[in-house]
Amino acid sequence: MEKGSLLYEGKAKKVYETNDENIVWIEYKDSATAFNGEKKASIDGKGRLNNEITSLLFSKLKELGIDSHFISKISETEQLVKKVAIIPLETVVRNVSAGSFAKRLGVEEGKPLTRTIVEFYYKDDDLGDPLLTEDHIEILQLASKEEVEIIKEKALKVNSVLTEFFKELGIRLVDFKLEFGKDQSGAILLADEISPDTCRLWDIATNEKLDKDVFRRDLGSLTDAYENILSRLGGQKVCTK
Amino acid sequence: MEKGSLLYEGKAKKVYETNDENIVWIEYKDSATAFNGEKKASIDGKGRLNNEITSLLFSKLKELGIDSHFISKISETEQLVKKVAIIPLETVVRNVSAGSFAKRLGVEEGKPLTRTIVEFYYKDDDLGDPLLTEDHIEILQLASKEEVEIIKEKALKVNSVLTEFFKELGIRLVDFKLEFGKDQSGAILLADEISPDTCRLWDIATNEKLDKDVFRRDLGSLTDAYENILSRLGGQKVCTK
Repeated sequence: MEKGSLLYEGKAKKVYETNDENIVWIEYKDSATAFNGEKKASIDGKGRLNNEITSLLFSKLKELGIDSHFISKISETEQLVKKVAIIPLETVVRNVSAGSFAKRLGVEEGKPLTRTIVEFYYKDDDLGDPLLTEDHIEILQLASKEEVEIIKEKALKVNSVLTEFFKELGIRLVDFKLEFGKDQSGAILLADEISPDTCRLWDIATNEKLDKDVFRRDLGSLTDAYENILSRLGGQKVCTK
Repeated sequence: MEKGSLLYEGKAKKVYETNDENIVWIEYKDSATAFNGEKKASIDGKGRLNNEITSLLFSKLKELGIDSHFISKISETEQLVKKVAIIPLETVVRNVSAGSFAKRLGVEEGKPLTRTIVEFYYKDDDLGDPLLTEDHIEILQLASKEEVEIIKEKALKVNSVLTEFFKELGIRLVDFKLEFGKDQSGAILLADEISPDTCRLWDIATNEKLDKDVFRRDLGSLTDAYENILSRLGGQKVCTK
């Protein structure tokens, strides 16, 4: 597989084409951003950690019957994935009140929700990723009603599987963001990443935050938190210093 | 009917009890507020205009088979209404992109929506009336799924009737906000007001704004705009100076 030219550079990843038109080459960057890019930093090792964690989680999901765009990890910071057209929705699954949900709706952070909910946000940095209702998705033609149903079903399945998986590792899966894309055939496929950048992960015993809130709220070392997750997942600790 | 003590004072109205426990006495105030109370003014005649317009519209809706809390207008600025427990949802019906919808979602103001949509906002000044999904309404226990369906159905019926009615008067009903309450028996009843404070009303020929956006955006005389609406509705112009 040969790495081709840069297709797209996002806040956390670069995407390159390859000599296979159905496959792209992802490079995880060391940059950390929050609050729609208002807060940013470069953190040595972050790209590696998110690549390792995402690769492990997508592999685990595949084992358990949930397909994604993930093909293989090819280096500490790179992976190959199926090329999909990303649907401009951030799909958020919430089990426990936290973050923007807690603040917007006045529900104390840490309070378990009476049932899991799925929210959609418009993936548009200029608009600040606003919350959408299903009617908004339909009239903005971001996805059809049927596609929204498929996405919700897949997101809830990911939640069931990951909630149990993390629980065995002593971690509470509070909430997380997924992105989906469409492959050549139009089928909807789980895409992007699943990492402490996109999940809220709390230690079950201590409620210690082991995710990007460490960076958002200046709670300590982001790499220590992410290394903690990676090591519980069984990944190799690498000395980067 | 005797006016009793003040039960509640809102931004635009005062609510008094009466000697009938099922009826309250509403007094429309001259205050104008926008942007969650950040912009405010006292505008002579506004209370009278909204009372007259709301009374005419609730009477018209009743004629056309849509019930509300409205009983009767008892003075230029006062009306009697059935006492209901207000459900803390602002129900917004949108036919055309405008206001916060246009801004949040990047849809040009004035663009007709491909279909009418109903949105819900959490009626909570401290939280700034945030947009809610139906899942939020359910887990915050603001209303049941069945109640939300009833509210949507009623709101769309009001929209059909008022869109036609205003069209005959040369006015485009762009969007509007409704509130609903529950009466003693638990039945859901249309409540609050329907006025240029709660509707966007544009002249069909000129697109002139004849609603609270005149105040929000400093577009001229609010009372001229509201008098225009009242006179098209067939209401009496009163010299207040």
